[in-house]
Amino acid sequence: MGITVSKQENFSEWFTQVLTKADLVDTRYGVQGFVVHKPWAMRIIREIYRMFEEELEKGGHEPVLFPLLIPEEYLEKEKEHVKGFKPEVFWVTEGGDEKLERKLALRPTSETAFYSMYSLWIQSWRDLPLKLYQSVSVYRYEKTTRPFIRGREFLWIEAHCAFATREEALKQVKEDMENLKKVVWDRLAVPFVFLRRPPWDKFAGAEDTYAADTLMPEGRVLQIASTHDLGTRFAEAFNIAFVDKDGQWKRVHQTCYGPGIWRIMAALIAIHGDEKGLVLPFDVAPVQVVVIPIFYSDEERDKVVAKCNLIEEKLAGAGYRALVDLREKTPGWKFNDWELKGVPLRIEIGRREIESGSLTVFRRDTRKRVLVKEEELLQRVEELRHSILEELKRRAMEFFNSRIINVTDKETLLRAAKNGMIAVAPFCGREECAEDMRTQVEGLRVRGTELNHQEGDYGKCIWCGSPARQRVYIARAY
Amino acid sequence: MGITVSKQENFSEWFTQVLTKADLVDTRYGVQGFVVHKPWAMRIIREIYRMFEEELEKGGHEPVLFPLLIPEEYLEKEKEHVKGFKPEVFWVTEGGDEKLERKLALRPTSETAFYSMYSLWIQSWRDLPLKLYQSVSVYRYEKTTRPFIRGREFLWIEAHCAFATREEALKQVKEDMENLKKVVWDRLAVPFVFLRRPPWDKFAGAEDTYAADTLMPEGRVLQIASTHDLGTRFAEAFNIAFVDKDGQWKRVHQTCYGPGIWRIMAALIAIHGDEKGLVLPFDVAPVQVVVIPIFYSDEERDKVVAKCNLIEEKLAGAGYRALVDLREKTPGWKFNDWELKGVPLRIEIGRREIESGSLTVFRRDTRKRVLVKEEELLQRVEELRHSILEELKRRAMEFFNSRIINVTDKETLLRAAKNGMIAVAPFCGREECAEDMRTQVEGLRVRGTELNHQEGDYGKCIWCGSPARQRVYIARAY
Repeated sequence: MGITVSKQENFSEWFTQVLTKADLVDTRYGVQGFVVHKPWAMRIIREIYRMFEEELEKGGHEPVLFPLLIPEEYLEKEKEHVKGFKPEVFWVTEGGDEKLERKLALRPTSETAFYSMYSLWIQSWRDLPLKLYQSVSVYRYEKTTRPFIRGREFLWIEAHCAFATREEALKQVKEDMENLKKVVWDRLAVPFVFLRRPPWDKFAGAEDTYAADTLMPEGRVLQIASTHDLGTRFAEAFNIAFVDKDGQWKRVHQTCYGPGIWRIMAALIAIHGDEKGLVLPFDVAPVQVVVIPIFYSDEERDKVVAKCNLIEEKLAGAGYRALVDLREKTPGWKFNDWELKGVPLRIEIGRREIESGSLTVFRRDTRKRVLVKEEELLQRVEELRHSILEELKRRAMEFFNSRIINVTDKETLLRAAKNGMIAVAPFCGREECAEDMRTQVEGLRVRGTELNHQEGDYGKCIWCGSPARQRVYIARAY
Repeated sequence: MGITVSKQENFSEWFTQVLTKADLVDTRYGVQGFVVHKPWAMRIIREIYRMFEEELEKGGHEPVLFPLLIPEEYLEKEKEHVKGFKPEVFWVTEGGDEKLERKLALRPTSETAFYSMYSLWIQSWRDLPLKLYQSVSVYRYEKTTRPFIRGREFLWIEAHCAFATREEALKQVKEDMENLKKVVWDRLAVPFVFLRRPPWDKFAGAEDTYAADTLMPEGRVLQIASTHDLGTRFAEAFNIAFVDKDGQWKRVHQTCYGPGIWRIMAALIAIHGDEKGLVLPFDVAPVQVVVIPIFYSDEERDKVVAKCNLIEEKLAGAGYRALVDLREKTPGWKFNDWELKGVPLRIEIGRREIESGSLTVFRRDTRKRVLVKEEELLQRVEELRHSILEELKRRAMEFFNSRIINVTDKETLLRAAKNGMIAVAPFCGREECAEDMRTQVEGLRVRGTELNHQEGDYGKCIWCGSPARQRVYIARAY
């Protein structure tokens, strides 16, 4: 039942096997690109959502729920936006036996739904800032799909803000980046770099797009979130204006932010996982500590199970998600099963542990056993929780950093890209160059510049040799 | 800004005003029957979801998420089911510029989605019982809509179970009823009666339907949840079978259960609310205790606000959702605003309270003030929490019970129905009689029999005068 391929050698097959064998999704549902999320995935996803929602609400966001269906005329109001999204919209055209009077889109994203109401809700500077978010699925008619990486139905959060001034809007963009870091790096140990996307890769309708890229083991970058400076474009299209303190009507400045819950799941699975299966950060694990009884007779069984239950109660009482595995399987089978599922800590309890008063605790991340005195259990579990997070961070960052390379010539760039590296290179800034790269290596993209990047003299463009005013990140992407 | 009509005299207008003035939903979104859920509603709804999910998981249910879209051929597999739901399905027929090869339904309910996978997942008695649920929106092309009562998009939970035996399935139906009670009565103080629906009012595809009816102030019953004994009908349609311990292939016995989160919101609002607005049970209130500073000078202001913050911290530290209202409005304006929003407890703090060491605590349910010594605050808040729940239960049950009446003649039945009563009456059991009633009083329905009802000699049918073998509940319904 274990994973039969190596993550390094055949990532694609490894990923597919983990999704199935750790029982995360079932892809056999009868509509392409729509997967069934199974309990183990849903419970991880729920924790990720809670982390984001908690952080967003600390920052003054409030939860809302907008309709799934968006009228065609809403989508059409902002002309760049509709160009970007209309080709991939699913349309509802019938209700019962009737043809609807107008087509309704399944939300591909909800700017136009939110902002049609913002124009009603915002009248005065007193109504600002307005910071709302929703946790929903969105729908896109994609040609190729892969669970957690690209779906026709996928889970995310979308936060939509409106401000009186451009300064506040830009501050929000920074806050969004901070929000992502607090969850994805601080708690999930997934490293990423925030880049300012080149103009041709901006969100449809945005002035500027900042997006977080992580790197998957097969050497492709994966965008896990983005935040957009929308300027006043949507405010113009939807007529969102307010009377300011000075008595003047002004348009609002808007931002929107989307952490991709699906993509974050993909990164979590791929970056931390190993040849035994999932490796879950402690805070998102549906079961944080599993307790496995080991016995060789009925008499032993009763004593051992009683002790296991006691330990579970102790852990649950301290707020950990703990479980005793009483299934009629061998300890070895259970070990493999919970390792496959990525449970961070396993406590093995048999006669020896009862007699010695020391418990055997197995760490999923390092696959090492430690002995823990029973009376020190809670303290040690809390220490291990932190230690596991630090270990996952260390490994993930080591991998991420080792794959970023400065390059100045085309040959090295192409070799780096083919080897799954992120190249940092001088660039002329022209879309034509970026387009031409894609014809040389499948999926190769100019991902953008660092946040503190300044235009200047960076030598010659790595592609066309003309003067380079920028230093950009270039990598293969999904 | 307050409510301008009485709930008793004009419920419909009262309900509409509360939805708007307590800022629960906005109905101005551009698609009929699709409303925007605003933060105050979403935060209440989130608490209700958590209560149900917690109880379901205690009972062994696990969370899943199935696709929104259901292929037409899945819907058609169970012939009663498709007859019941097809007329009210929204259809997705296009993706981008392309016409899809086959129509896809927005889930009106997800039996056919779940059971298409159950046939893959269930092979052996070891795979049973299977108890899964999802918290989602569903979609129905309804002609008339009203927020929280009937929508084209509404929120619910659907739990789908499969068992080896009929006994286990029937036990699950009882467990579902208990689940509803634990949330809706025990914590939300909404009274209801579970009835076995007459055969013509069963869920499409079920052997038996048991549904919970509450009574709205305007005297119409509202179904807030239902649980269905599906027998082996869907198991036959979807070929869900397992090898039992005896080596024989057998079909599973299935149940499904749906607490209507939207409907429960409607009941919560309507049953507890009063002429000042919402009255929220303590456990679901987004803000449980609001602290209002009262001051008449800048010097007083600083002291009073400091004390308010201290009290808020104390409450938050004990796990309550507390808030200091520092908006630049008069205390009177704030009192009205939080009463409109249904916040259970308000603490008013001014110079007098600081000097005396006693806080003025206002209960939303009774609209009475009590003095609480500061050092006893936490203990008293906890007492008040229970006391509020008991008071809401007492009032709600008093109303509910006062509206149930035994009747034996047609005239009294019609008068009772018009007066918004639930009649309990002898009945012949024929659909024709039930249909004929509806032509006499709009919305009048035979709702079914009590759970422990035994067929017998109940005299003459209240409608046709032929022998009555049943005693049924009859009331106007939505």
